[in-house]
Amino acid sequence: MSHLVHLTNARLAQGDQLVSGDLWFDPKAGVFVPPPNPAPTSTVIDIQNRIVAPGFLDLQINGAYGFDFSEDSANNHAGISYTERYRDVRRKLIATGTTSLLPTMTSPSKSRDPFDGAESLGAHCEGPFFAHNRMGVHLPNAIHASGVTSEPERVLETYGARNLINTDGLSNRASPRSIPSNVRMITMAPERLGALDTIKQLSQAGIIMSIGHTAANYQQSRAGIDAGATMITHLYNQMNGHHHREPGPLGILGGAGDVNEENETRILKQDQKGEDTNINRPYFGIIADGNHVHPASIRLAQLMHPGGLVLVTDALLLLGGEDGTIDWLTRRLTKKGVSVTLEGTDIIAGSCVTLLQCLNNFRRWTGVSIPIALQAVTSRPAAVLGLSHLKGTLRVGADADFVVLKEEAVQGQCTSDLVVDQVWKFGVKVYDQATHE
Amino acid sequence: MSHLVHLTNARLAQGDQLVSGDLWFDPKAGVFVPPPNPAPTSTVIDIQNRIVAPGFLDLQINGAYGFDFSEDSANNHAGISYTERYRDVRRKLIATGTTSLLPTMTSPSKSRDPFDGAESLGAHCEGPFFAHNRMGVHLPNAIHASGVTSEPERVLETYGARNLINTDGLSNRASPRSIPSNVRMITMAPERLGALDTIKQLSQAGIIMSIGHTAANYQQSRAGIDAGATMITHLYNQMNGHHHREPGPLGILGGAGDVNEENETRILKQDQKGEDTNINRPYFGIIADGNHVHPASIRLAQLMHPGGLVLVTDALLLLGGEDGTIDWLTRRLTKKGVSVTLEGTDIIAGSCVTLLQCLNNFRRWTGVSIPIALQAVTSRPAAVLGLSHLKGTLRVGADADFVVLKEEAVQGQCTSDLVVDQVWKFGVKVYDQATHE
Repeated sequence: MSHLVHLTNARLAQGDQLVSGDLWFDPKAGVFVPPPNPAPTSTVIDIQNRIVAPGFLDLQINGAYGFDFSEDSANNHAGISYTERYRDVRRKLIATGTTSLLPTMTSPSKSRDPFDGAESLGAHCEGPFFAHNRMGVHLPNAIHASGVTSEPERVLETYGARNLINTDGLSNRASPRSIPSNVRMITMAPERLGALDTIKQLSQAGIIMSIGHTAANYQQSRAGIDAGATMITHLYNQMNGHHHREPGPLGILGGAGDVNEENETRILKQDQKGEDTNINRPYFGIIADGNHVHPASIRLAQLMHPGGLVLVTDALLLLGGEDGTIDWLTRRLTKKGVSVTLEGTDIIAGSCVTLLQCLNNFRRWTGVSIPIALQAVTSRPAAVLGLSHLKGTLRVGADADFVVLKEEAVQGQCTSDLVVDQVWKFGVKVYDQATHE
Repeated sequence: MSHLVHLTNARLAQGDQLVSGDLWFDPKAGVFVPPPNPAPTSTVIDIQNRIVAPGFLDLQINGAYGFDFSEDSANNHAGISYTERYRDVRRKLIATGTTSLLPTMTSPSKSRDPFDGAESLGAHCEGPFFAHNRMGVHLPNAIHASGVTSEPERVLETYGARNLINTDGLSNRASPRSIPSNVRMITMAPERLGALDTIKQLSQAGIIMSIGHTAANYQQSRAGIDAGATMITHLYNQMNGHHHREPGPLGILGGAGDVNEENETRILKQDQKGEDTNINRPYFGIIADGNHVHPASIRLAQLMHPGGLVLVTDALLLLGGEDGTIDWLTRRLTKKGVSVTLEGTDIIAGSCVTLLQCLNNFRRWTGVSIPIALQAVTSRPAAVLGLSHLKGTLRVGADADFVVLKEEAVQGQCTSDLVVDQVWKFGVKVYDQATHE
């Protein structure tokens, strides 16, 4: 056994509790290990009663720090390659507590180099199979004309079949420990012609199918879940609203019509612990930037389906930049604080928040405990991806990706903010607030 | 001690449980009593493991069986007075399990005669201080013109000050055991000029103020609750819908912005038991007729605020009648099954369901347990009225209003239906399925 690291005097985020305890990991293998017996030589780190949580996972992030994940990977920018700039962004992101992400439209990093920054777990392809009237700021010519179907053969052609299977030829689902296919998640409007067939085929192959940018009504949303979709992309945004007689996608958060007392009892118990209760209920991403969705609606979403809520940033390349207006593809985007709009309009074009900011907003708006809130950026996004044993957890065998958090009082606010003190990736400290300039 | 009645071998609806046990009541006083010791001569009734629940309370019912509570009480109909017809309707209602009600715009019955049928607990004045664009089928000329304010003096003048105070001169709140004022509840749009002042004054006097038929946004709804309103009238219907960035009245179900971890923990625990968790959260009526609101929206409401949900019928005089079209004030209403619409349109004009039907729908659509579902028609409406010690409970000292229910399997349905076998009012059996023609 190699030299281990022993964290002591920590409050560990485990399930719905903060548990005082110790933690061991192997920095060479980059994974958590059981308490060694007899104790070998190990480095002991006193966490001084701060919180140790799994590193954060962001399932929807389009770019940051001036870099757009969707840009052509053949591009050089001031002589710096896509690969270098991509790594630079991930290194910066890690300081915010995000240790894994699903970048949009790019290839996953296959390395386990902690100094590469936040790790890609595969691409989240947001589009182009959207409803023509729910495109948001996606480019119209990128959206397939309504005459073009979403049948499996068209979808495979669009993404490239080689991007949808594992490099070892297995489906993601059959071998979650193997290197995943380039595409990990696809957002699709389930009401499009052929979409249900595609959702069925791709979900069976282990691609996480999420419904979004959709004009689906309640029945069509339900059909998407029944076909194999397990997620809703940024709940509330770019979908039909809730009407009490046509509940739309929101209506399916409560589960199918066949809820019964046995399920209900289980749901209530699990809801209380923030456990996943996906008996025919989808997970859902939600953007808690205070701009996409009203705080009261975030609170309602948490009440409606606490076991399904996943915080996502939907951040753009403007994250981490200065306020102002930039060119973006054929559009111009204006950043002002955490808000990004199409220049001269109030059309929301994405966000400029970190997942840590979303987490702190979420705590303030819902009053949920720290460990319950942490689930929405750790264990739950990992569960969406079928990676509960590897990511978003402090359990033995999982990757030793974790953050050290402290609470900081905020003036005029009942709820403290969580602040990232340290970030460890694969058992190596890659960020320390104390030594960071 | 007078001759007591002893119910044995019953499943008692208590809190979130059905508890096997016995119950004693004094049919002369009409109240539940403690187990006598030593046991006196008493009539023993074997309930044969059926369910004993408190009698149902309907907080919103406009009429039934051809009778409209709002009609002029000086009217005679085929030589039968308002009083006689009013009693006839209440006698018929009792066979549906409803032992108490808030009729619209009429005076409460002051008697404790069990053979008078379902007991009035005071009027629910639904209107006329509504938003001009949220009137539903209320008559336009009954709604005060937008120029007329909702200031306290105007409201007192409209209802008559003598209808808003107890006959003993006390407020309802100060003496809940005393005879209540004629008006027990008022539905009002909080955004109207002067409405917040009126809500404050009348709620302090013990009138239950409910917001409804309203164009209020989220902030205006919140202001109504902060001023003293404790209820929302038929959630979803005749109010602004939920938009994710302007949550409207629905947004306030989650509580005020000041939720914190301590409250949240309490809320989650109480939600699970179906207890009332009204930390700045209103109760709300909801019409589970399958017509006013989609089943999935009922389910979402139950998830959002289980401790606030009150089933109401909003039934019209057409309840219990044949399908067809009748004259109603200056309108014509068409009844078809449980649906009532303005003739020739699909504009919903009320319902034709019993509270028992709503209860069975609610169980089927949410999967909640029998005792949790029963709370929505017993203990919770009683709590709305501040009558938890007298109504909607089987506790000692409360009025011995109760129903004996059995479960009946329904073909093609996972959930059984509850059927009313017997109804007891003030300790006297007033309905028995076995002997009823």
